Amino acid sequence: MSVTAAQGFAAAGVAAGIKPSGKPDVALVRSLVPSVGAALWTTNRVQAAPVVVSRRHLSQADPQAVVVNAGVANAATGPGGEDDALATARHVAVALGLAPEQVLVLSTGVIGARLPMQRVLAGVDAAAAQLSPDGGRAAAEAILTTDSGPKLATVSSDAFTVGGMAKGAGMIHPCLATMLVLLTTDYPLEAGEVDGFLRAAVERSFNRISVDGETSTNDAVLLLANGKSRVARDTGLDSTFDAALGEVCADLARQIVADGEGATVVLEISVTSASSKEEALAIARRIATSPLVKTAAFGQDPNWGRVLAAAGSAPYDGGFARLEPERLSVSFEGTPVFVAGAPTGLVPRLGGPSCRIELDLGLGVGDASYLASDLTHDYVTLNAEYTT
Amino acid sequence: MSVTAAQGFAAAGVAAGIKPSGKPDVALVRSLVPSVGAALWTTNRVQAAPVVVSRRHLSQADPQAVVVNAGVANAATGPGGEDDALATARHVAVALGLAPEQVLVLSTGVIGARLPMQRVLAGVDAAAAQLSPDGGRAAAEAILTTDSGPKLATVSSDAFTVGGMAKGAGMIHPCLATMLVLLTTDYPLEAGEVDGFLRAAVERSFNRISVDGETSTNDAVLLLANGKSRVARDTGLDSTFDAALGEVCADLARQIVADGEGATVVLEISVTSASSKEEALAIARRIATSPLVKTAAFGQDPNWGRVLAAAGSAPYDGGFARLEPERLSVSFEGTPVFVAGAPTGLVPRLGGPSCRIELDLGLGVGDASYLASDLTHDYVTLNAEYTT
Repeated sequence: MSVTAAQGFAAAGVAAGIKPSGKPDVALVRSLVPSVGAALWTTNRVQAAPVVVSRRHLSQADPQAVVVNAGVANAATGPGGEDDALATARHVAVALGLAPEQVLVLSTGVIGARLPMQRVLAGVDAAAAQLSPDGGRAAAEAILTTDSGPKLATVSSDAFTVGGMAKGAGMIHPCLATMLVLLTTDYPLEAGEVDGFLRAAVERSFNRISVDGETSTNDAVLLLANGKSRVARDTGLDSTFDAALGEVCADLARQIVADGEGATVVLEISVTSASSKEEALAIARRIATSPLVKTAAFGQDPNWGRVLAAAGSAPYDGGFARLEPERLSVSFEGTPVFVAGAPTGLVPRLGGPSCRIELDLGLGVGDASYLASDLTHDYVTLNAEYTT
Repeated sequence: MSVTAAQGFAAAGVAAGIKPSGKPDVALVRSLVPSVGAALWTTNRVQAAPVVVSRRHLSQADPQAVVVNAGVANAATGPGGEDDALATARHVAVALGLAPEQVLVLSTGVIGARLPMQRVLAGVDAAAAQLSPDGGRAAAEAILTTDSGPKLATVSSDAFTVGGMAKGAGMIHPCLATMLVLLTTDYPLEAGEVDGFLRAAVERSFNRISVDGETSTNDAVLLLANGKSRVARDTGLDSTFDAALGEVCADLARQIVADGEGATVVLEISVTSASSKEEALAIARRIATSPLVKTAAFGQDPNWGRVLAAAGSAPYDGGFARLEPERLSVSFEGTPVFVAGAPTGLVPRLGGPSCRIELDLGLGVGDASYLASDLTHDYVTLNAEYTT
């Protein structure tokens, strides 16, 4: 399962003492044969040291191993932080008989603290010794921070398997990668092809979710492909692979939202008939990040007025996305509450673990959807009482 | 005090039964002599009926009276809502012997509900009968929603007085007006001059505050000037008037943030040496609206890592505002926590009712500041448990 579901991958997760809780905090994943890979990195202007180092490594060699630590993000740590990330990659390389450039390093946790390197390197040694084709779940456990549990997904066909693990509960908001996600597949891809498949899948999944509108300094989505499946390269299978990769990403993305810090409800926001796809996305994103919509969702209150107010103030192209209230219709859970500019008086029933909010703008053919979590007391408690 | 501090203004506030609580909910303010005026309206694409009607009136005549109701926003109410706003203006006009176009109408409260017109019109009659040069405070009481108390400010000079009242606790976020503010002055201004003074003052005050990043469908800032001061028109006094107007606006803006829904701390965010003034503002605004920064403030946690992460993801010009971590310095309450790209290890002491966060980007000469409230349990409670 997870990152070891595909043929030819091994993984491990160990407790190295980086997290004060003593929970697992170092994960190691490798392909047992040469692999190719691609990554999408956080777009934040403040990029953590492991992001800087891994980005460089990926430009220098095909990746074959990924090491992840949780607990300390190694972000905003100055030049020393880059040395630490590089030392970690070198240590993994020695342990696995690879070149340092073949190793990607990811970190997640508190910003501004240096890594306890002795513990990290000891953790790498322990993980390297435990690498196993059954280690996918252990690895997924070791990359968590405020998550309530591991996030795994696998899709298999006769021909190939795609598997993945993710972590993320707060600071989840797109602009490319906004959480740690590692995907593996045994589908045979050429080095230059991986990036295109990954981008398309991420655009439809991880770039359409929001827990709190935050974009982290560390987050990344990686895909390693080692070609160990039973099939030979056949572009006729590409669309099947694309769909499988998309399904794994969508599954993990939804798990991240459902496990959003303090979340009790998943908002499924759908915007149709906007002036353009970009404007549909701007409106969906604005609703997904509105504190008033998200607190109403927590209260199971079908407060469509707040949805309208959010939709009407969606930043786009230096102003707001186009919207004409007299053409707009809104429904909650399938019940129309506002049709062509006027309230219907209908009261939708809420109360489930998800809430579908649909807006039809009546303007054009632009559609977009978004998943978001609600804003709750537990979100405030988690982020006010603990340094994360 | 308030809107009746300046010469030649009268006001009243009454309980008309629009709010279920029975608290005052209709305010009436008039100039006793012909006046000129200007307004800045919400930039939300969904504009409430009173905004549509008042905007039209202002283009047709010089305003001389303003009626405000709280409890129901008359927003997203279809064509019937516009009829209601117009009927309210007409009723005020008859009561005060003005033309309907001289009356501006403002509403604040629940979105999507129609006004109880019988109550509104009876409230107008009662308020008209009680109009008084001492009614400023009563008017300020009658425009509140989730505010904890009235927001008043007055600045007087030998020559003139500027006074104002404001309401706003949630849905406070700029893009022009984002709350109800009514300012009055006896300083003699020509009709064409009012708008320029108002815009400049609002840009420095109400456009630099955020409670929750929301932009309402109703909000407005109005300025009425009736020339009843002792001075004749003298452009030599304009800069004094400009400063006084700015002071009243800044005072009311800070009151709004301090009284933000659930707020316990006012964040004073200052960004200096950005590449441009616009980028400084984008970064300040991003920090001011970051749920992670705002929950940390609630927890009195000097979590500068979250400030960095927010600053690095400030939307600007289709991407993020320019920021180079190695040139960046951050301080909390005057204590440097991050200097030229590296943590200092210093731990600032927080705990007061305000928290000063300063970022020096080391890039250019762009400066901006912003006030924001923290994100607390009470914000969630207020907005999850009650329809507002």
